[in-house]
Amino acid sequence: MYQTLQTAFPIFTANFLQTMSKGITSRSENYSEWYNDLVRKGGLAEHSDVRGCMVIKPYGFALWENMKAQLDTMFKDTGHVNAYFPLFIPKSYLSREADHVEGFAKECAVVTHYRLKNAEDGSGVIVDPAAKLEEELIVRPTSETIIWSTYKKWIQSYRDLPLLINQWANVVRWEMRTRLFLRTAEFLWQEGHTAHATEQEAIEEAEQMLHVYADFVEQYLAIPVMRGVKTESERFAGAVETYCIEALMQDGKALQAGTSHFLGQNFAKAFDVKFADKENKEEYVWATSWGVSTRLVGALIMAHSDDEGLVLPPKMAPYHAVLLPMLRKNDPEFNETMINKAKEMAAGLKKAGLRIKIDTDETKRPGFKYAAYELQGYPMRVVVGPRDLENNQVEVARRDTKEKFFVGLDELEQKLVGLVDEIHDNMYAKAKAYQESHVTEANTWEEFQDILDNKGGFVSAHWDGTNETEDKIKEATKATIRCIPLNNQQEAGQCIFSGKPSTQRVLFAKAY
Amino acid sequence: MYQTLQTAFPIFTANFLQTMSKGITSRSENYSEWYNDLVRKGGLAEHSDVRGCMVIKPYGFALWENMKAQLDTMFKDTGHVNAYFPLFIPKSYLSREADHVEGFAKECAVVTHYRLKNAEDGSGVIVDPAAKLEEELIVRPTSETIIWSTYKKWIQSYRDLPLLINQWANVVRWEMRTRLFLRTAEFLWQEGHTAHATEQEAIEEAEQMLHVYADFVEQYLAIPVMRGVKTESERFAGAVETYCIEALMQDGKALQAGTSHFLGQNFAKAFDVKFADKENKEEYVWATSWGVSTRLVGALIMAHSDDEGLVLPPKMAPYHAVLLPMLRKNDPEFNETMINKAKEMAAGLKKAGLRIKIDTDETKRPGFKYAAYELQGYPMRVVVGPRDLENNQVEVARRDTKEKFFVGLDELEQKLVGLVDEIHDNMYAKAKAYQESHVTEANTWEEFQDILDNKGGFVSAHWDGTNETEDKIKEATKATIRCIPLNNQQEAGQCIFSGKPSTQRVLFAKAY
Repeated sequence: MYQTLQTAFPIFTANFLQTMSKGITSRSENYSEWYNDLVRKGGLAEHSDVRGCMVIKPYGFALWENMKAQLDTMFKDTGHVNAYFPLFIPKSYLSREADHVEGFAKECAVVTHYRLKNAEDGSGVIVDPAAKLEEELIVRPTSETIIWSTYKKWIQSYRDLPLLINQWANVVRWEMRTRLFLRTAEFLWQEGHTAHATEQEAIEEAEQMLHVYADFVEQYLAIPVMRGVKTESERFAGAVETYCIEALMQDGKALQAGTSHFLGQNFAKAFDVKFADKENKEEYVWATSWGVSTRLVGALIMAHSDDEGLVLPPKMAPYHAVLLPMLRKNDPEFNETMINKAKEMAAGLKKAGLRIKIDTDETKRPGFKYAAYELQGYPMRVVVGPRDLENNQVEVARRDTKEKFFVGLDELEQKLVGLVDEIHDNMYAKAKAYQESHVTEANTWEEFQDILDNKGGFVSAHWDGTNETEDKIKEATKATIRCIPLNNQQEAGQCIFSGKPSTQRVLFAKAY
Repeated sequence: MYQTLQTAFPIFTANFLQTMSKGITSRSENYSEWYNDLVRKGGLAEHSDVRGCMVIKPYGFALWENMKAQLDTMFKDTGHVNAYFPLFIPKSYLSREADHVEGFAKECAVVTHYRLKNAEDGSGVIVDPAAKLEEELIVRPTSETIIWSTYKKWIQSYRDLPLLINQWANVVRWEMRTRLFLRTAEFLWQEGHTAHATEQEAIEEAEQMLHVYADFVEQYLAIPVMRGVKTESERFAGAVETYCIEALMQDGKALQAGTSHFLGQNFAKAFDVKFADKENKEEYVWATSWGVSTRLVGALIMAHSDDEGLVLPPKMAPYHAVLLPMLRKNDPEFNETMINKAKEMAAGLKKAGLRIKIDTDETKRPGFKYAAYELQGYPMRVVVGPRDLENNQVEVARRDTKEKFFVGLDELEQKLVGLVDEIHDNMYAKAKAYQESHVTEANTWEEFQDILDNKGGFVSAHWDGTNETEDKIKEATKATIRCIPLNNQQEAGQCIFSGKPSTQRVLFAKAY
């Protein structure tokens, strides 16, 4: 049922338990510090010695691996295949598509040399000035340009289309102000790049992938999202239309969780990629691109966790449950019995498709362990105690509701498998209720500001459709238009800011 | 039974069939061109516009994905977890370990700036001289330095050990002469980096991973390997001992297929990583690192393929079999029946764990398709013809032996599942026989040269144990010491070159 992607995190437990203190900043005290505490004390990631780059620790990486495996399955189920394109992009490629270079060429890592040499004074190594590249290489911030220069060689006829390719890769965008998972100079992502014979097919692909993302985030991360399109000023650099999913965090700020772009013929024209149709007429190819990144790890932390620690969505959690056999100091015989009993249970649970950790550390007290696994957001905790065993039962605790109850050994597997869905559904319902109570209509500028300042969440308001007004609203409130919802209801009204006529409401919010 | 990692390669078939010509250079004519033809015409990879960097095409990437999935399982089964460390390494880090900098700092990609700007003359973008990094960053050629600078923060006590971490990543080594998969500037690999409390445990880890690699290459790529240790001059830069597996290609040249290093305390000392043992005494940590790369794709191509095209080891092939329903031009009703029959069979075969492709292109003749799938190395071809169907059978052809035979529909699944192992075993046996017949003892310098010039393969010969002799032999013959076999037989003799006393034979060969 559930793939076992991670078998063990033996490492870190000791380290983690030692350094852990329950001193997590509360959300109400400082939301931003609360987030940092969870990422660091939960053992997910940390800043590296390289400015802006993070180290994703094993527990955090396991989350990403689970997400990757599920997304990859969904991409393949929709007919895509994986490939790999170069890390480096010749500088001149970025200039080919006019909007693209404006959006991406600026803050990036530039490779100018290809050799070091020993310093003559013996002080270490220096860059060899003789090894200067003729043309500088950019570490990819996104791969449209290098991929479309390759597609030119692969596409001649309508028979070569569609190309439905995805790449799992690292990308670099030089960010000055970084936050673990949410905004880092290097991050991991996937980028789909497809080529089509018709405009219609490309639009359908872009929309399909938006729904794949939305389904994934809702059904596996338990985060409800708004599906929509971006306004012109928030569009991807080089796109004709940018579709997006927007999630709401517990502080009322929105987070863009994934985007899918209909690129029109912009990149085909920039890289001269034409195909011969059935009538042997040459036409430019139609394109899409779409991506989600390790930013989703940040989203799931902020959407669900509480002041006690992480609350991980069970379908993606590194482990579904931790088994805690009750152990005694200096009683090896008793401990062996208990550990064997736990192992036996774990074997059955794993067979049922669950990812299970057993904690056999006898030097730590139960209360200490409970706090630790609570902090790390294990969806279920199973305490295996001698007295309960006599009654053929164990005590199960849910992380999401903190409920505790006894489960008979003969129904343990069935019950825990069922709980994965139950916990997921509960987490989703809670997040959905929060989202629904945080979409507020504003009909005056005062209302609009008041909601943003005091309630947060999405504000549904009329907008006159101009970049100018959008900019001014952003300047005044820091809120941006997160999206124009898909299949948006048409409704005559007046722009919240300019008072000019408007045909529909759009969703504003402050955002990450 | 077999994980379905790739579901479809709809793309490329048309393109590939169009551009394919059966003009593959034969091995005897030009081995190197034969290899290039297979990689390019087989649709595995191609050179990119960025010098030295390759594009791994979907069919080639599927091979790597299958290898990755299997290796990842084996790493996790031996207690390892995955993590992710930065792409960039501060220049000064490379200088910390003296041998390491000599080996790795020289040919590498150097990031010196972090911003581009528009050229004032409107000619495009230029590097912004104001955005120069204080310290240059190196694109990782391998990650020991950045990882050990991180481990310093993670390791305080024996309780934090062992750390058993692996990373799947891209790395860059600036190569002047590149060959697809075998030697490229950027390549994909995994690098394990472990930390231990004792020397013994670290050595055991390094040896264990060598055997994991050997088992993987033999049991999944069907390539027999020699297991051994490198001589001092061939050791990894910074290692105390380098373990390696060496495979033999069909041209008699050896290929290093994987390495595992016991690093002693070298990196712990360079990055000051100490731990407190049970007696609270501080000691430096012991280390290993180990890696295999996309080079293995090159190895499997060269070990098994023939003059008709690729012969892919079935356990790792993107598809185990292609189903070819016989189709007629302009007979849609007949074609629908045949395609439905093939789909029905495919469903059963997939359920049995096989990766199956169905070719429904009615514009190509069977002979053309046979040649195409032969070139792409599909392990099995199943022809679904109307007359055979009347007899409740299909015609199956094996790529490895080119045998054709009929299989009854009621035993198709069982038979093809069995053939995966049978084909694997046959390919391994063939490669093993070749390897065994290409380990030749040489007892004189003339014999030694004669074997290298005329027979190829490994030459087992006495060596006096000095770098100097090793260098001279390399200069004279281009052959290097590939390894000193594990558990090597001790035998008194005289160095093949210097005549000095020797205690054991070592394996020489020309190598990739």
